[in-house]
Amino acid sequence: MTRSWWGWGHVEDAVRGAELEALLARVRALMPGELTAHEPPDISSLALPTPRVTPPASLAGLCSVDPGDRAAHAHGKAFRDVVRNLHGELRHVPDLVARPAEERDVIDLLDWCTREGIAMVPYGGGSSVVGGVEPRCDGHPAAVTVDLGHMNRVLEIDRTSRAARIQAGALGPDLENQLRPHGLTLRHFPQSFEFSTLGGWLATRAGGHYATLYTHIDDLVESMRVVTGAGVSASLRLPGSGAGPSPDRLFLGSEGSLGVITEAWMRLQERPCHHARASVRFGDYTAAVAATRAIAQSGLNPANCRLLDAAEALINAGVSVAGGLLVLAFESADHPVRLDLQRAVELCRDHGGEPTADTAEEPGRGAAAAPRKASAGDIAAETWRSSFLRMPYQRDALARHSLIVETFETACTWDRFEALHHAVTEAARQAIGEVAGTGVVTCRFTHVYPDGPAPYFGVYAPGRWGSTVAQWDHIKDAVSEAIHTCGGTITHHHAVGRDHRPWYDRQRPDPFAAALTAAKTALDPAGVLNPGVLLPAP
Amino acid sequence: MTRSWWGWGHVEDAVRGAELEALLARVRALMPGELTAHEPPDISSLALPTPRVTPPASLAGLCSVDPGDRAAHAHGKAFRDVVRNLHGELRHVPDLVARPAEERDVIDLLDWCTREGIAMVPYGGGSSVVGGVEPRCDGHPAAVTVDLGHMNRVLEIDRTSRAARIQAGALGPDLENQLRPHGLTLRHFPQSFEFSTLGGWLATRAGGHYATLYTHIDDLVESMRVVTGAGVSASLRLPGSGAGPSPDRLFLGSEGSLGVITEAWMRLQERPCHHARASVRFGDYTAAVAATRAIAQSGLNPANCRLLDAAEALINAGVSVAGGLLVLAFESADHPVRLDLQRAVELCRDHGGEPTADTAEEPGRGAAAAPRKASAGDIAAETWRSSFLRMPYQRDALARHSLIVETFETACTWDRFEALHHAVTEAARQAIGEVAGTGVVTCRFTHVYPDGPAPYFGVYAPGRWGSTVAQWDHIKDAVSEAIHTCGGTITHHHAVGRDHRPWYDRQRPDPFAAALTAAKTALDPAGVLNPGVLLPAP
Repeated sequence: MTRSWWGWGHVEDAVRGAELEALLARVRALMPGELTAHEPPDISSLALPTPRVTPPASLAGLCSVDPGDRAAHAHGKAFRDVVRNLHGELRHVPDLVARPAEERDVIDLLDWCTREGIAMVPYGGGSSVVGGVEPRCDGHPAAVTVDLGHMNRVLEIDRTSRAARIQAGALGPDLENQLRPHGLTLRHFPQSFEFSTLGGWLATRAGGHYATLYTHIDDLVESMRVVTGAGVSASLRLPGSGAGPSPDRLFLGSEGSLGVITEAWMRLQERPCHHARASVRFGDYTAAVAATRAIAQSGLNPANCRLLDAAEALINAGVSVAGGLLVLAFESADHPVRLDLQRAVELCRDHGGEPTADTAEEPGRGAAAAPRKASAGDIAAETWRSSFLRMPYQRDALARHSLIVETFETACTWDRFEALHHAVTEAARQAIGEVAGTGVVTCRFTHVYPDGPAPYFGVYAPGRWGSTVAQWDHIKDAVSEAIHTCGGTITHHHAVGRDHRPWYDRQRPDPFAAALTAAKTALDPAGVLNPGVLLPAP
Repeated sequence: MTRSWWGWGHVEDAVRGAELEALLARVRALMPGELTAHEPPDISSLALPTPRVTPPASLAGLCSVDPGDRAAHAHGKAFRDVVRNLHGELRHVPDLVARPAEERDVIDLLDWCTREGIAMVPYGGGSSVVGGVEPRCDGHPAAVTVDLGHMNRVLEIDRTSRAARIQAGALGPDLENQLRPHGLTLRHFPQSFEFSTLGGWLATRAGGHYATLYTHIDDLVESMRVVTGAGVSASLRLPGSGAGPSPDRLFLGSEGSLGVITEAWMRLQERPCHHARASVRFGDYTAAVAATRAIAQSGLNPANCRLLDAAEALINAGVSVAGGLLVLAFESADHPVRLDLQRAVELCRDHGGEPTADTAEEPGRGAAAAPRKASAGDIAAETWRSSFLRMPYQRDALARHSLIVETFETACTWDRFEALHHAVTEAARQAIGEVAGTGVVTCRFTHVYPDGPAPYFGVYAPGRWGSTVAQWDHIKDAVSEAIHTCGGTITHHHAVGRDHRPWYDRQRPDPFAAALTAAKTALDPAGVLNPGVLLPAP
């Protein structure tokens, strides 16, 4: 399999042939207009600038100046990244791509960058959608991207405490494959699972599999090692502590600006063998939200509790509902969960929900249909799940056809959700109207908390080839303003990077920014670590 | 009711009469020796030094120089605090006790202290057991204790999101009484519940009611307001976020060294109406630990899962067991929890546990005995619970009789627990032997995590009047060394304060300490906020 330098995932998995035709047909039905395919440029045509630095001999063996390597590390994987790649617009290309084999190499690379004032951009799987890995290194003479991909091993497993010491560069499948023989799993499955790393998840506070409780990777961390300009920060392996502010919580979400995470002890799960799933249809969105809130506040803690609005259900699950479709799942490695599902479905019924199917699996008995037979709703949930992993590939295919296809997300308290949802949707529609005519705005909940949901929006609009980045940026500005005004966070799990900075700067308390800036100066005195991410470049 | 200036809680609740006789009889049975009562000194005999500062006229109305007030704010409520009070040894007395009525007053007080270089000690309920409120203000000309007790209101309730905005000075009963009419509860019940405040819980990352999941107050925080030297830090009310490192997590555990917490939006619970409880006896401690681990890793998430070792069960629950007694409880406001309890008990049986009783309550039906009738074990659990709240009063009574009675706590991963438990118990016994002859060391788990327990140790030993603080300090040094050597945290929920600093300084990563020091300098440029707590006084 070959990684795409310009788009998502593997070249071999790109949307093509019949899948592409069907996708384009669906788009034409929603947004009439001509759809012309545009090809990505050949890497040889990019004319990348000559590297501005030469590594010292001791580090030369880790460093690549291969144009394909440098081009592939120039951008993350946001819509605007993919489109700029398609246009061959690579303004900020790392001068070198370094691949450390061990922590010592990371220390040496940081020493060198600090000495020379070279921007150092930590890089995991490169799936950032917020400019988090793009070396826009204002003021620095050069940039080195440090790709942790060769540090991808599970180093130690503690079966008793159910934890493992894992290197930061392990991609999702890398680490799950190494944990599987031990019957254990990290169970952190972001949409980017195949193409993002443990270190990236930690640095960006990634959101994962669990819709409730362990929503962010944060809660799965026992301890971390981080290479900083003030030495290696190694926290103690602990199940919980109250000794001062948590050291790990300072580095979680630091996005490479305070140090380079090299490994972590992570809390693991047994592989679940009890499953129960259902889909519930609602005729009214407000009622669907109320039901989801009731479940979020019930203490039932479903593994999955994703409310799709009518547009999301139609486009990505192929289900036509007037109000919304709630996809519910419970799982356990220890005990049956069917009664939990029944109670959750009962809460849905209290709000007018109609369960379309439910299934339960117990160990050794395989899938057993519940009294009602598996129906369209259950298939819809499966459709949505497989669609979920295809979405980034479809996004790339549509981007090549001048479509604007992007997502954004937030979280807010329940009391603010209705106003936020209305304002954000309206802002998106109006901005789409201004730059692209008509489009579609969808919403689903990726995670829910007792005190509020994490809504995730999708935008689909017709664009003009050559202008789609500017068109999207206009829409993104409008929705970000609406989110900020309505009390939502600028990001629940996509991170801040460079692109969310204008709103993050208004969201975070000023004294906290002063403290974070001071911490950065202590840990990165030369200001070389991912400059411009989280904090203004010095 | 009158607050004791020298000891725990209310004067009227002190252990006396028949309760005292019974307590002393139990002690005599375990540790023969003479027990003479010593009376606390009269406040007028303390001869406190004259206050070294005069507040500006604008703040004078908030400030008290009353000797009783100053004496009562000189120490926290550790054993060593109580004994020093009993001896009239008040070396560090605040010059003034200020009681702000609103956030503006806190800002003005901090401005004044910053201008004058006066140490400012934030004070909630004063229940610190780590020297966290004692103004040992090396280098500062004077100290002002800022007692938030007048800021004790619930300011706003959001029923939809189940959250409330609460002032930092609210004691446990204050805030629960204000939430009760709304059917809501914070459900944070540390042993100090009656005499500690929300602000204190947040500043020290207090451990509460829940043995699993929401163990620390940290997870119940939506947003906080903190007065710092760089302005008021006000975080956004959010159910979850991934926008940079969490601002709240920097202030959680900052113990007044970075700012003064004035209010917080807290996540609340419905009042539970479904309950199920059981006590399980084990003949073998290792098996009891294994059973507790199985439950902690089951995903059942009991509200209570406290394993008492044989000594703890005997002394505080009146139950004689060879291995241990596991007190289990489940609760919910939404659904029956009896099956959860049954599964937990089954896991205990797998490890040789014998359930002695279980009970379940459902809404509208009151307590209904389960098939087996409520027996000694159930009464034992109740005994332990009521004993729990009397413990600090008993500690005071025993301290007056020259007994050494103190606790310490930690957390570690399961793989390390057996070695840690052995080393800590041995270190305690040896140190007791060196300074006090024979004594008793007990252990219970206050909280359990999938990856490890939080063991809480009790020490009971005969002391010599006038030497018990030095005797205890010797024991405490020994057990702290053992905890540190075995990979435990120096504190799971008692905080660092000034007393845990030697071990905290070795536990926290140096680069993190550099970052924290830099953050403190940014937020407290004059270094007046609780100097010597968490970080060395400048």
